[in-house]
Amino acid sequence: MRERSWWGWGWTDQAVEGRELAELRAQVGAFLPLSGEVLPVPPVPALAPPRLAPPPGVDARADDAPRAAHTHGKAYRDVIRNLRGELTHPPDFVWYPRDVAAIERAMEFAARNGAALIPYGGGTSVVGGVEYRGADRPVIALDMSRMDATLEVDPTSLAVRVQGGILGPALEDRLRPYGLTLRHFPQSFEFSTVGGWLATRAGGHFATGDTRIDDLVESIQIVTPSGVAESERVPSSGAGPAPDRLWLGSEGALGVITSAWLRVRRRPTFKLGAAASFSSYQDGVLATREIVQSGLQPANCRLLDPLESMLGAGGVDGASRLILGFESADHPVDHALARALEICRDHGGVVDEEATMRAAAGGPDADPTTGGTTAGRWRETFLRAPYLRDGLARLGVIVETFETSCTWSSFEQLHAAVIDAVAPAVATCRFTHVYPDGPAPYFTVYASGRPGGEVEQWDAIKARGSQAVLDNGGTITHHHAVGRDHAPWYRPSPVHQSALRAVKHTLDPHRILNPGVLAL
Amino acid sequence: MRERSWWGWGWTDQAVEGRELAELRAQVGAFLPLSGEVLPVPPVPALAPPRLAPPPGVDARADDAPRAAHTHGKAYRDVIRNLRGELTHPPDFVWYPRDVAAIERAMEFAARNGAALIPYGGGTSVVGGVEYRGADRPVIALDMSRMDATLEVDPTSLAVRVQGGILGPALEDRLRPYGLTLRHFPQSFEFSTVGGWLATRAGGHFATGDTRIDDLVESIQIVTPSGVAESERVPSSGAGPAPDRLWLGSEGALGVITSAWLRVRRRPTFKLGAAASFSSYQDGVLATREIVQSGLQPANCRLLDPLESMLGAGGVDGASRLILGFESADHPVDHALARALEICRDHGGVVDEEATMRAAAGGPDADPTTGGTTAGRWRETFLRAPYLRDGLARLGVIVETFETSCTWSSFEQLHAAVIDAVAPAVATCRFTHVYPDGPAPYFTVYASGRPGGEVEQWDAIKARGSQAVLDNGGTITHHHAVGRDHAPWYRPSPVHQSALRAVKHTLDPHRILNPGVLAL
Repeated sequence: MRERSWWGWGWTDQAVEGRELAELRAQVGAFLPLSGEVLPVPPVPALAPPRLAPPPGVDARADDAPRAAHTHGKAYRDVIRNLRGELTHPPDFVWYPRDVAAIERAMEFAARNGAALIPYGGGTSVVGGVEYRGADRPVIALDMSRMDATLEVDPTSLAVRVQGGILGPALEDRLRPYGLTLRHFPQSFEFSTVGGWLATRAGGHFATGDTRIDDLVESIQIVTPSGVAESERVPSSGAGPAPDRLWLGSEGALGVITSAWLRVRRRPTFKLGAAASFSSYQDGVLATREIVQSGLQPANCRLLDPLESMLGAGGVDGASRLILGFESADHPVDHALARALEICRDHGGVVDEEATMRAAAGGPDADPTTGGTTAGRWRETFLRAPYLRDGLARLGVIVETFETSCTWSSFEQLHAAVIDAVAPAVATCRFTHVYPDGPAPYFTVYASGRPGGEVEQWDAIKARGSQAVLDNGGTITHHHAVGRDHAPWYRPSPVHQSALRAVKHTLDPHRILNPGVLAL
Repeated sequence: MRERSWWGWGWTDQAVEGRELAELRAQVGAFLPLSGEVLPVPPVPALAPPRLAPPPGVDARADDAPRAAHTHGKAYRDVIRNLRGELTHPPDFVWYPRDVAAIERAMEFAARNGAALIPYGGGTSVVGGVEYRGADRPVIALDMSRMDATLEVDPTSLAVRVQGGILGPALEDRLRPYGLTLRHFPQSFEFSTVGGWLATRAGGHFATGDTRIDDLVESIQIVTPSGVAESERVPSSGAGPAPDRLWLGSEGALGVITSAWLRVRRRPTFKLGAAASFSSYQDGVLATREIVQSGLQPANCRLLDPLESMLGAGGVDGASRLILGFESADHPVDHALARALEICRDHGGVVDEEATMRAAAGGPDADPTTGGTTAGRWRETFLRAPYLRDGLARLGVIVETFETSCTWSSFEQLHAAVIDAVAPAVATCRFTHVYPDGPAPYFTVYASGRPGGEVEQWDAIKARGSQAVLDNGGTITHHHAVGRDHAPWYRPSPVHQSALRAVKHTLDPHRILNPGVLAL
């Protein structure tokens, strides 16, 4: 049986090792000075004994391995701390509920014992979303992995009801026999859960249109310390403030999402992809804007800036690159692609005929659930990226991402300001999602780490980048959530924050649930 | 200068009178027995003197005409009560704020005087949304009509910032020089405001895709008794529960929406429409479902059941009728329409070639802001309907609408149950909006009124219809809001309701704002 890494991303057998690590070292050493230190894969450290034991007869584990694995999320700063054995606030034990009653019991137990209860889906947070920080109190990780059933499929209405702990691949496996798919593929797809997607408002497969898990949910069941809430299952209702919108983005601070009805779709049979290059980045931005404002709704519309194009896609010409994809389960998408490429050419874009041919045979962004030999280079890189990140971390490279969204009017200035702010670290940018009113830029940052000082070094880079984002009209997060790492730059209006605090106080009066996220 | 009707819909000079009224009487008398009574257009009744006077120096009116006009919304039960002079809870005066400071002053004044403050946009609520009901206390109508400015246009990002009191036509007038449009055309378009649309989550022009004003808003400024909230203006953010979603659907109970950034689009230049008939209603439903699940995204996709087809569109063959429209500002829509009609034919639909030709020349659902001789019959009927409703009310006909949404799986049973439940009243049904997971059915009900007993008679019909909606998987409202009329069937989960009540208590501790809506 495959084993999950306690300290880094994904499966242990997928970690970058041996020759691959040496090659990575040579590649990155060409543009970043490396200290030469290579951090070893760390054993599970010996943790302080639990302050609180699980009650008898529940599914729980209090040994060091699961406690260590549930201490941090999967951000760079989590990985580097794991590599260096810095586990300051491990949970005292991990509770694995199998039903709503067990969650209610865990909430009562936590309240009675003054413990914090951290809802834990796949644990892939990159913003400190599952890591307790704060005053000394017992901490329980509530691991939802046993609540992973598919409860109901409605092929007529194209919807499925699943439990919150189901992982992406399992969900797709259960939909495949019906010819259906959720088509929600965050980078964490393999290791993250429906409940986690909903609690953090995850961004998904589609670059335009229904981009966010919010758009794919019909109704939610959530367990709060004050009772279970369940919204009516209808396509759309205008009855009061939308109830699910209070839970979407609540990051485990208001309740635990136990099940949801999700909108699914027929698996696409018509797929086309293409790529175009722009010698001027500004022209690439203009073309991308016109495509998304045209209403063509590409499934994929990913503009890489010149540096991203070079480091992420092997471009050597200093050009920007726009990756396009169209898909449908009902009708050919040739006309849509042709019109999008016409827009590219109108803005000086040069269509990469070879990439377009390749894409036609499988797509540069092919379905990660089916894969296959025709899937392009980018998809491999996309899913492999977190493993490479871990390898780079071991080699002493600081490598991390952050993302935002802003209007088209403010993008150019934001892009320049962010790249300027993080220097001397190097930042590249791509659009993960685009809207008629603006893009969602995603930055990847590289810097040489100072051995032992990487966390502080990264935190300083991140602080400068975040401030540049806010100063230039961006939001602190488009789809990574707030967690604890973004708290200093999360600035809801005071009126809205007082409303959220009132909800928190009413639903979680003992403040047991994921204390500290969302500044709640 | 044209005058607004105090008792009924719209402009006084558009009311159904004289020969038109006689013709209407003959038409409807053919299928409904009429008492023969014709209620006269009522003068403004003499109201009880105000219990509270406006403070000196503010823009306010305390005479009977504006007080009477601000007593009710524009539902059938409002019109019939106005016709019969039954104005039980008129506001004591109407306050016309010109800025945020005036609204804050009105809130302080209301709190100090124990008054209820009813935010009033265009006053077109059909669910008792602007009518005070409850214990004896002073009531102030806060009429937003003076806050109707366009503050900023961002043609690059396709967005506009307007004040909450702006009416539909004024907004479109200000966008037209830029070649832009909001394309949000509720039936009340001419007389309703942006603030009202946002507060009630209005349904708009598009039958599929971005159907609701919720989808068109970037950020909201709202004045609450505890301060002013304003959300960041970005295309999309994943930072916590979406702040605007708390205000969308708050129906004036949490604050007054003073301005908003809205997403606009280029005015469509490619438009095609078509109609198809189905001898089996079930086949029409299947075809409609397949079209919306295909991802073709028609702007218009309105299935009329056989009776609606007869009464609303002059059909005499007992068939159901599907009205389709496609539009784009960027590219031809021929392929999309052709594929949709292919789906119709696959399900036994007969395409009405003549209507399709007519539609190509202007559309059965042409833009209500431009009109013109080519606009089809349906658009005229749509905008004329509320005036006809008032004429029918005067003739003793009960005529009213209600709407819901449900999954495709539950629609057939819901449709039958509602029509059965309202009998002996006659109900027709059309889809106003359709989603991949289900339609939004809109019912129109006709019955002979018992003179003097129409309100009770309608309330009984509505109660039976509403219960049938809830019993068969529908929501109590898709886009008419909850107000006070829907309160008995508005059933958020108790946990969600306690969260909303906590927000209400925090933001409006003196309970001055629109007390009674949303059961708050």
